[in-house]
Amino acid sequence: MRAITMHKAGDVRVENVPDAAIQEPTDALIRVTRACVCGSDLWPYNDGPNNAGQVMGHEAIGVVEAIGSDVRTIRPGQVVIMPFAFSDGTCMFCDEGLQTACIHGGFFGNGNAVGGAQAEALRVPFADGTLFPVDVDAEDALMPSLLTLSDVMGTGHHAAVVAQVKPGHVVAVMGDGAVGLCGVIAARRLGAEQIILMGRHEDRLALGKEFGATHFVRERGDEAIARVSELTGGHGAHSVLECVGSEKAIETSMGIVRPGGAVGRVGVPHYSTIPDAQSMFFSNVTVGGGPAPVRAYIAELLPEVLEGRIEPGKVFDRKVDLDGVPEGYDAMNRREALKVLIKP
Amino acid sequence: MRAITMHKAGDVRVENVPDAAIQEPTDALIRVTRACVCGSDLWPYNDGPNNAGQVMGHEAIGVVEAIGSDVRTIRPGQVVIMPFAFSDGTCMFCDEGLQTACIHGGFFGNGNAVGGAQAEALRVPFADGTLFPVDVDAEDALMPSLLTLSDVMGTGHHAAVVAQVKPGHVVAVMGDGAVGLCGVIAARRLGAEQIILMGRHEDRLALGKEFGATHFVRERGDEAIARVSELTGGHGAHSVLECVGSEKAIETSMGIVRPGGAVGRVGVPHYSTIPDAQSMFFSNVTVGGGPAPVRAYIAELLPEVLEGRIEPGKVFDRKVDLDGVPEGYDAMNRREALKVLIKP
Repeated sequence: MRAITMHKAGDVRVENVPDAAIQEPTDALIRVTRACVCGSDLWPYNDGPNNAGQVMGHEAIGVVEAIGSDVRTIRPGQVVIMPFAFSDGTCMFCDEGLQTACIHGGFFGNGNAVGGAQAEALRVPFADGTLFPVDVDAEDALMPSLLTLSDVMGTGHHAAVVAQVKPGHVVAVMGDGAVGLCGVIAARRLGAEQIILMGRHEDRLALGKEFGATHFVRERGDEAIARVSELTGGHGAHSVLECVGSEKAIETSMGIVRPGGAVGRVGVPHYSTIPDAQSMFFSNVTVGGGPAPVRAYIAELLPEVLEGRIEPGKVFDRKVDLDGVPEGYDAMNRREALKVLIKP
Repeated sequence: MRAITMHKAGDVRVENVPDAAIQEPTDALIRVTRACVCGSDLWPYNDGPNNAGQVMGHEAIGVVEAIGSDVRTIRPGQVVIMPFAFSDGTCMFCDEGLQTACIHGGFFGNGNAVGGAQAEALRVPFADGTLFPVDVDAEDALMPSLLTLSDVMGTGHHAAVVAQVKPGHVVAVMGDGAVGLCGVIAARRLGAEQIILMGRHEDRLALGKEFGATHFVRERGDEAIARVSELTGGHGAHSVLECVGSEKAIETSMGIVRPGGAVGRVGVPHYSTIPDAQSMFFSNVTVGGGPAPVRAYIAELLPEVLEGRIEPGKVFDRKVDLDGVPEGYDAMNRREALKVLIKP
């Protein structure tokens, strides 16, 4: 089958790889009908992959082609949302809704024995625990928004949940990438009154405005902190959604959160310690977050998409087939494309 | 009046200082009937005070002697609990129950213009917002437990709240000082099933057992982490109450919290960054906490004390008058005394 592989930094190829196939009785095999490139794929695109030649991609919607003998709830022919992490659905962490800590779980497109979603087909471990069937046609017009439930929309929602967004809150969203923009949607859904989007790409800020952002901060570092202070009566934001992952971003987050507030981190951290542990303490600031248990959030967010109350699919501003993916990585890396949708 | 002053590290004196008096119309003047020495007083006792000669102490119960012309709810003659922080009771942070972030607030016994509680009397700013009247006699037998509501019991409770203790949880308490022991009480009250107390003073561990601790870890560092792992089926604790404040303690806390768990910090941090920001992220661990808004917790905890369901006053294992306070500091510093109660 054809799939997207990464060999070293900047080297993304369309290649023939061994066909995906059922290996375990709990597996399902899906034909990928939609996939996409994630902002987090740009880290290996710049720094190199975990394993040379690994199949990339962790977000997908597909049609179930085959199931293993122990699969109970997933059936061939179903359209399914595939969260970026697989999970057994039965361990204590899955029970608690933290599927990204599943004892037997792991991540797609990560260079491990499980494949990637930027491919014609994919083996999905623990099909019952991982996949979420949706009763729509595989070519439904809502596909872009449904696809975001496999990662970015659930991840933006996770940031908002961890940052304890509540009705009337002042929320700051660090980063105007697809996750940050979905964070804006999530903050509005949860009742935030003032939503400050921090970024510097005018087209993305415009989409953020459409999603519910009320204020925009284009500055960085200390200037950004001063600007947020100005916009919040000197107090800062109740909730900060950290959707970048750089050291600068966490430093700024700590500078704009108000006493008693919370920072929700969903950008994969490229730093080793949380700064300002003392001022964080004296301000009773909370920091949390991590890989979003998007599997747990689909039940809550799916009706929102199906009934048209949120349209996170608008983050896709480019659509390619597999042959167009290498150019898609490049366009996202140059910040020319916001998020690239793949129709294999 | 007589008061306890600190001049430099290790130099604690009983001295005559200017009488406490009403200065602002929102002040109350209290006669201190009970005060105590806090574990956090040992930091300046070892490192030196903020201001040479400052009056020490931030925990007190007293009788109101006089009030300013704008005081509305506090009346002379009332027995009052004085939280370690003063707060106006009207700002947005006080409204939200985070009185330790009060816009006009501050801390007692900190070397600022407001005095300390280890004294015969004390001026209390914002009497209406700060003091909590209790309908008991000034010499009631419950005084030791009531006194803990001014700091240590509320602080242990705050650690448990921030660490998200819930019924059935596995809780680890770092530190067997008075706050840690009150954290054990709080964890049990909130329904924890397994409470692992980490310390190495046998008498304190015994009191912890009485308070509800079910397991004890005497090891430190990596050995402590391994031991907690063993006691928790390899998963770690849902909730870690960090009641020490040293770099080693926060490192160990990060090592024993399980995925999706939370660390509640109430030990004043003597470190500048939170370690393990990456493993913390991949485990979806939350870190929060700070100076406890004990004023907000008194309403919840007071009936527990008055009706005898909790007895945090047992942390006091020595009772002195003002003349005995310098020796009390020394005994606490040598870990000979757990917590010293002062009857001025």
